[in-house]
Amino acid sequence: MMKKIYFKNLKEYFNKEVEICGFVENIRDLQYVQFLVVRDISGKVQVTLEKNEENKELNNIISNLTNDSTVKIKGVLLENEKVKLNGMEIIPKEIEVTSKCLGEMPLNYKDSKSATIDTRLNYRFLDLRNEKNILMFQVQTCFINAMRNYLLENNFNEIHTPKLIGAASESGSEVFEVNYFGEKAYLAQSPQFYKQMAMASGMDRVFEVAPAFRAENSNSYRHTTDFTSFDIEMSYLENLEELMDFEENLFIAGLSAVKEKYGEKIKEYFNVEVVVPTKPFPRIKLEELYSELENNYGFKMNFEDVGDMNSEAEKLASRYVMEKYGHEFVFVTDFSAKKRAFYHKRENGIPQGADLIWKGCETTTLALREHRYEVLVEQAKEKGLGTDVEFYLEFFKYGCPPHGGFAIGVDRITMLLLETGSLKETMFLFRGPSRLTP
Amino acid sequence: MMKKIYFKNLKEYFNKEVEICGFVENIRDLQYVQFLVVRDISGKVQVTLEKNEENKELNNIISNLTNDSTVKIKGVLLENEKVKLNGMEIIPKEIEVTSKCLGEMPLNYKDSKSATIDTRLNYRFLDLRNEKNILMFQVQTCFINAMRNYLLENNFNEIHTPKLIGAASESGSEVFEVNYFGEKAYLAQSPQFYKQMAMASGMDRVFEVAPAFRAENSNSYRHTTDFTSFDIEMSYLENLEELMDFEENLFIAGLSAVKEKYGEKIKEYFNVEVVVPTKPFPRIKLEELYSELENNYGFKMNFEDVGDMNSEAEKLASRYVMEKYGHEFVFVTDFSAKKRAFYHKRENGIPQGADLIWKGCETTTLALREHRYEVLVEQAKEKGLGTDVEFYLEFFKYGCPPHGGFAIGVDRITMLLLETGSLKETMFLFRGPSRLTP
Repeated sequence: MMKKIYFKNLKEYFNKEVEICGFVENIRDLQYVQFLVVRDISGKVQVTLEKNEENKELNNIISNLTNDSTVKIKGVLLENEKVKLNGMEIIPKEIEVTSKCLGEMPLNYKDSKSATIDTRLNYRFLDLRNEKNILMFQVQTCFINAMRNYLLENNFNEIHTPKLIGAASESGSEVFEVNYFGEKAYLAQSPQFYKQMAMASGMDRVFEVAPAFRAENSNSYRHTTDFTSFDIEMSYLENLEELMDFEENLFIAGLSAVKEKYGEKIKEYFNVEVVVPTKPFPRIKLEELYSELENNYGFKMNFEDVGDMNSEAEKLASRYVMEKYGHEFVFVTDFSAKKRAFYHKRENGIPQGADLIWKGCETTTLALREHRYEVLVEQAKEKGLGTDVEFYLEFFKYGCPPHGGFAIGVDRITMLLLETGSLKETMFLFRGPSRLTP
Repeated sequence: MMKKIYFKNLKEYFNKEVEICGFVENIRDLQYVQFLVVRDISGKVQVTLEKNEENKELNNIISNLTNDSTVKIKGVLLENEKVKLNGMEIIPKEIEVTSKCLGEMPLNYKDSKSATIDTRLNYRFLDLRNEKNILMFQVQTCFINAMRNYLLENNFNEIHTPKLIGAASESGSEVFEVNYFGEKAYLAQSPQFYKQMAMASGMDRVFEVAPAFRAENSNSYRHTTDFTSFDIEMSYLENLEELMDFEENLFIAGLSAVKEKYGEKIKEYFNVEVVVPTKPFPRIKLEELYSELENNYGFKMNFEDVGDMNSEAEKLASRYVMEKYGHEFVFVTDFSAKKRAFYHKRENGIPQGADLIWKGCETTTLALREHRYEVLVEQAKEKGLGTDVEFYLEFFKYGCPPHGGFAIGVDRITMLLLETGSLKETMFLFRGPSRLTP
C-alpha cells in the first residue's frame, strides 16, 4: 500500500516527485498561469501551472475544474518563498479529477454564520468540511483515546452491553419503545445495570463507550436523544474519595494529551486555552455550595430542586470555584437521597456520590453503589420500583464486591472543552425530538 | 488511592503485609486449621489460619463464611513450598466480609456443561464467574484495542454516528422500528451511510466501534439482533488490493497482541493455538473457488446462492485454503453484482469487493464504494431503491473522494478466535429473537 502523504508533512519531500489527493479549495485561472489550492485533512498546498502549449491538456483540466471537486495530482514539490501558502508549490505532471462537484453548493461551509443551524444540520456533510468542525473530531478522538488508554493501563476490560432491553430501566418515562418481533423492547438509557452485573461476575473493572438513548422531549443546548456515553465501573472501592481521585486522573490524562497534540490549534480555531487541571479538584458539599452561591451571587435554589443541582446552580458553581480557586472543575457532594437513584450507596442517609461540574455544566454523576442485597431491596422499594428492577436485584444475591463508577457524556465534554455552546454544533449528527435526519 | 494488588503479582510481596480483595473460591474448615482460597480476576491465593484462642474471632468469621462471598483480608504473605497453590499463603490479621452469598447457587458456574445454555444465559452474571468466560473479555479487549491502535497510528479519527435513523437503510426488512415521540424511527443496521458521509466531509479516514441492530429472525450460531460492529472507512483508495492489504495489517496487529499477551492462556483454557497470519492472505475468485470446492469436495452451490457464498461454502473455503496454503484466512473476490449492495463500486460489472473468511465463517465484507453520483443513482435504481436512499445519494453531489471500507463483527471474531462455537457463549449478554433478558 502506498503511504499516503499528508499535506502537513509535505516539507519532507522538497524537490521530489509527490502524489497528493484532496479537495479543490480554490482555483485562480489567470492569463499566463493557473493556481490551485488543494486541501486534505491536515493542511493545504498550492499547485502552480504555467499556461502554454506543452501544458495544454492539464491547463484544460484546470479550466474546467470546480471548487470542492476532488483531485489526484502527481508532480514535483518545490520550495518557493514567494508562495504565501507554506512557501511551497507543486508543479503538476498529471491531474486526475477523481470526483466533480456537480452543482451550486447549498451552503457556504467556510462561513458557519452564513446559515442557520438547521440548514447546517440538513447539509451536515458539507458543514463538516469546515476545518474547525473536522478539528472537533480529531480533538475528541485524542481526548477519548487518552482516557481509554488510562483505563487500559489500570486493568480495565472493555465490555459491550445490549442496547435492546426487555424492561424499561430505572423509570418507565424517557425511554424509547421498540417493536421486537411483535413484543415490546426498550432502548437502554445507560449500561448502568449491566456494568454493575460485570462487578457481580468478578470482572473487577470494566468500561464501555457506546450510545445511550433518552426519550427526553427537551431542546436544551446539552440534551440529545442519542448520545455517546463513556462508562466505567470498578470493584473494591473504599470510599467516594477514591472514585473522585480516579476521575481526576482520567480527565488529566485526557486533557494532557489534548493540550499536547491540539492545544495550539484549539487556541487558533476556538479561542480556547486548554487547561490541564491540578489535583485535587475542589470539592464542596451541596448545602455549603448553596450558602456560598447565596452569599456571593444572591442565588436561591427553587423549592422543587432543593437537595439537587439545576443548570443555573451549575453555572454559578463554576463561577464560584473559578473565582475562589482558579479551577475549572468542582465536585459537588452530599446530595439529598430523595434526588438520587435508589442504587447509590448511603452513609448516614447521605448518598456517597458527587456531580462533577466543568465550565458550568454537569459532566458526570459518580457514586458508590449499594451492593448489599437487603439494603438495595429496601432502597428500591422506597423509590417505588418493582418488577422492572427484579432482574437487577438478583445480581446482588450471590456475593458482589463493593463497587462504584460513573458515566461521562462524550459529546458533552467535547462541547465543554471546545466551548462550542451546543451539542448541535458538536455532534457528528445531532438527534433531537424534532431531528432524525440526515 | 491505594494501589490494588492483583493476585498474579503477589510474589512481589513476600514477607510483607498485604491487603487483598476477592471472591471466596473454597473453604476448608478442619480441626486445627482453616484454609480459604480467594480469587480475583488475575488468580487465586490461599489464606491459612490456625484454630486457637488467639485467632478465635477470625476463626469464627471463616466458620460462618460461604463460598462466593467477597472478602477483604489483611495479613502477611509467606512463601511456602508446601502450598500447592503457587507456593504461597497469607496469614490473616483482619478479615472483612464485604458481601455474602445469600443462598444456594442456581448454577454451578465452574462446570459449564452442568447447565443448558438457556439456564446459563438466565444466570449470565454467575456464568461469567467462570475464569474461562472472563478470559474471553480480556482477550477481546486486547484484540480490539490493538486493532484500534493500528487505526489511530494510521491517521484514523473516531466517529459516533446516530443509531436512531429516520429512514430504514438499505432495505426495509430486518430493521427494528422505534416509537420516536409518536413518529416512526428505525435502529441503524450499520453506520455504512454515515461513515461514507464522513468521506464526503473530507474526514479522510474514520472508524467506529458501536452496536448495530438486525431484526433477523434467525437462530444460527453466528447471528444476533444486537451486536458490536467495528467499522472503518478510508478515502483515496486506488484499488481493492490496497483495502485487503490494510485489513491484513489490521488482523495481524490484533492477533499479534493477543498471541503475545494471552497466547498461552488461550491454549490452556480453549485449547486453541493463536496463529498470527502471514501476508498476503490467499485470494480466490468466487468462480474459481466453486470449481475447487466441486473438484475437491464434490460441493455444488445451490441455485439461489450462485454468485454468492453461503455457510457451507464458507466452511469448505476455509478447509480448502488450510489444505492448500496452510492459511486460516481467505479473501473471496468477484461476487455477482446481483448479490452485492448497490453502493459497491463495479469494474466491468464486477463488484470491487471481497469477503474475508476465517475459520469457516465470513468475518468481513469489504468493498470500494461507488462515489460517482450518476453511477450510484443508476445502481440504486437497478436495485429498486427509492426515497429511502435519497439523503444518502446527496452526499455524492458536491465532490467526494473515492473510498472504501469494511465492518468486522467484534463478537463474531472473538467467537472465531477462541472457537467457542456460538455467539451465545461469546457475548457478554446475548440477544436473539427469543431472548431480551437479563
